[in-house]
Amino acid sequence: MSLNAIVLNCTLKRSPAPSHTEALIRKVTGLMAPLGVESEIIRVVDHNIPFGVSSDEGEGDEWPGILAKVKAANILIIGTPIWFGVRSAVAQLVIERLDGTYDEPDPQTGQYPLYNTVGGVIITGNEDGAHDAASNTLFNLSHMGCVIPPNSDCYWVGDAGPGPSYMDAGGDKHMYTNKTARWMAHNLVYFAELMQENPIPTNIKQLTEDARAYSEDSCPPSHGAPLRGEA
Amino acid sequence: MSLNAIVLNCTLKRSPAPSHTEALIRKVTGLMAPLGVESEIIRVVDHNIPFGVSSDEGEGDEWPGILAKVKAANILIIGTPIWFGVRSAVAQLVIERLDGTYDEPDPQTGQYPLYNTVGGVIITGNEDGAHDAASNTLFNLSHMGCVIPPNSDCYWVGDAGPGPSYMDAGGDKHMYTNKTARWMAHNLVYFAELMQENPIPTNIKQLTEDARAYSEDSCPPSHGAPLRGEA
Amino acid sequence: MSLNAIVLNCTLKRSPAPSHTEALIRKVTGLMAPLGVESEIIRVVDHNIPFGVSSDEGEGDEWPGILAKVKAANILIIGTPIWFGVRSAVAQLVIERLDGTYDEPDPQTGQYPLYNTVGGVIITGNEDGAHDAASNTLFNLSHMGCVIPPNSDCYWVGDAGPGPSYMDAGGDKHMYTNKTARWMAHNLVYFAELMQENPIPTNIKQLTEDARAYSEDSCPPSHGAPLRGEA
Amino acid sequence: MSLNAIVLNCTLKRSPAPSHTEALIRKVTGLMAPLGVESEIIRVVDHNIPFGVSSDEGEGDEWPGILAKVKAANILIIGTPIWFGVRSAVAQLVIERLDGTYDEPDPQTGQYPLYNTVGGVIITGNEDGAHDAASNTLFNLSHMGCVIPPNSDCYWVGDAGPGPSYMDAGGDKHMYTNKTARWMAHNLVYFAELMQENPIPTNIKQLTEDARAYSEDSCPPSHGAPLRGEA
Repeated sequence: MSLNAIVLNCTLKRSPAPSHTEALIRKVTGLMAPLGVESEIIRVVDHNIPFGVSSDEGEGDEWPGILAKVKAANILIIGTPIWFGVRSAVAQLVIERLDGTYDEPDPQTGQYPLYNTVGGVIITGNEDGAHDAASNTLFNLSHMGCVIPPNSDCYWVGDAGPGPSYMDAGGDKHMYTNKTARWMAHNLVYFAELMQENPIPTNIKQLTEDARAYSEDSCPPSHGAPLRGEA
Repeated sequence: MSLNAIVLNCTLKRSPAPSHTEALIRKVTGLMAPLGVESEIIRVVDHNIPFGVSSDEGEGDEWPGILAKVKAANILIIGTPIWFGVRSAVAQLVIERLDGTYDEPDPQTGQYPLYNTVGGVIITGNEDGAHDAASNTLFNLSHMGCVIPPNSDCYWVGDAGPGPSYMDAGGDKHMYTNKTARWMAHNLVYFAELMQENPIPTNIKQLTEDARAYSEDSCPPSHGAPLRGEA
Repeated sequence: MSLNAIVLNCTLKRSPAPSHTEALIRKVTGLMAPLGVESEIIRVVDHNIPFGVSSDEGEGDEWPGILAKVKAANILIIGTPIWFGVRSAVAQLVIERLDGTYDEPDPQTGQYPLYNTVGGVIITGNEDGAHDAASNTLFNLSHMGCVIPPNSDCYWVGDAGPGPSYMDAGGDKHMYTNKTARWMAHNLVYFAELMQENPIPTNIKQLTEDARAYSEDSCPPSHGAPLRGEA
Repeated sequence: MSLNAIVLNCTLKRSPAPSHTEALIRKVTGLMAPLGVESEIIRVVDHNIPFGVSSDEGEGDEWPGILAKVKAANILIIGTPIWFGVRSAVAQLVIERLDGTYDEPDPQTGQYPLYNTVGGVIITGNEDGAHDAASNTLFNLSHMGCVIPPNSDCYWVGDAGPGPSYMDAGGDKHMYTNKTARWMAHNLVYFAELMQENPIPTNIKQLTEDARAYSEDSCPPSHGAPLRGEA
């Protein structure tokens, strides 16, 4: 079976500066290749991606081209460095831009475009913050429709305080990172195949109507502007 | 198909005190019932569950009985109130006790006992903190082997500051919560059936050996005690 | 000047089991001693502290005795191990029990009992999670009235994945941890003296009345139960 | 006494689009004005601020001008909307750019430029995420040298799910937000005066030397590249 993966590398550094996060990304894509996955790595900061929460922020915005690839992918991986204990500003920018996908539900099922996509996360930092970056990112992806397999993360961090980063610290030979890279690769691929053959049937649109029939707004309209489109 | 779900209600209040979290849990289990799911709700604080990170903390520990049910479930849901912006101490206790499952891998595949279990989270609070509670909890579950479907969370929170909780605030009629309760219920059930028919084949044990063959410890043994059992 | 500090060690292990967190706590209290600070370390799990959010949960509850010491302290430090990327269940329990202090405002100023107390945090884990544990804990303390000096945290964590903990990994000689231990100790002591001589004059009670005069409830009473006591 | 405050508004929207976060910021600066504080609000996204972790990212970078104002301020407030449960990408960008201040220690004391600055945070979102945004941001500021007074945050969020934002929801009249705005304003001002009269004497540089004399690297140099500059 032919599968494809998009990896968004959210390093702060433009090409051709070396990216520790990219080094770890390449390890994972290298493990997925023999399992039949063709991967494309996009270094987000090399492109003109304005801040925003829509799928197209107007002239010069290069996000629509990236988004088209994201929506066509079986596997979506966010790769991010850690800064100040959390995911990078570029990773946050990417997640915010993906907000626009909420506005493109399937007309029949109401499912968001990322439904049936399989999500993962790859993280590097010279110390602490991987759990926070991973949990927020995977949760955000799951909210936008991604399936999260077990052990769908891979990270390397050094011990407390500043220090060398992944490549300089010999992270390539770090047992825990290498173990989880393999687990992640195999589980991502298994679920990507599974979702291709068994797409989620849930009719989000109908269930939303059912919920609406049962619910009322918690505040009367006079106490606030009309609700924005749900999501 | 017959499926069963275990929901661990991590309220701080012992029975028979009313639990807002339980009210929302019952909504979700009520939506899963017609889809063929038999649910059991366990109010953790009614039992004697000592702090710890093993599956049995000795005499009087009631965790082993609960754990047996967790391991037998197709669907595992953590229900938690929010206190100080994060999940409750009882929810954290439950996650810590689940650490013991890392020590019970399948002899052939090395998979943890929660592999092929489908995970979800239900949260109530009188305000802010649901995203943090949900993302940490779902990430922790995925690390222990659970599959996380899209939209696998359901929460109710009020607006900024103290205020009435779920039941008192008319949360039963809150549109967003009712919508996501339905999405969650249907996605959990679909994935529970999917995993029953298509168990994950990944051989964690073999992949770990592959990783070990490629890796070295990042610090020589003379600089630290022997590593504890991995994972 | 004579100052005193209370350190709540939130390890999961009862005495006399060795606690890595306690080892790092003793380093910090040892650095504060020559600066005139008398410290008491309380291992919370050695006491009977039920779950709850009041200052006294009834018969057998040993929290009131600990709380009296907390309220009498110039410096309050939470020491916690990391489990699953966040602070321990015992640390969360302690923060939840401190919720009760919101109900004991000063009759004149409305200030909570922890106003003018100086707060800090000490964390150990065999890997990742210190930033999340520190930021939540210091923020919670600041919400209850504590002043947070610069660099008011000290932690040790190892690199990615399981591995030896603080004492076994030679953490005693870890430069970053030793540096921040000193910064923390000196800043805590300076601010403890400063607050003794310059107690915060803010009249919380009056400002709350000013706010009430300007505000209205965002929902009419018919849409929810009466608000609980604020804060 | 004359004091000045800089507020960095980290909305994603360029001027002249209305910013809910700015509306709440103006409430707080309006409360500080009669207490003798002159405030400047900078909408970060109106300026050309590249991603990075240095104080000057080269030609066209407008951060150096903003940073000069930040360093000259008595009070530094980060204002941010919530997106996907956490602070905005612009807020994360700002925190990352402040990383450069670590490289400008005082030659005598080693203190970072933000030592003796008083820090606060203002947050708006249509729902959930304020605690996470506040705790990370205040912790980051404290790590860079800021003093965090009690109740140094002010936020407005609506109830669970999408809905109207601060201005549209009548947040101007929300009791909790108005109460905490007043507490925050008064405490920020008190501490700004306090720090002007009582600058922190801690000699970070000397304490670092003391720590170095006691410590060793946890890994021998052969196992990694030389450590980057600490902090």
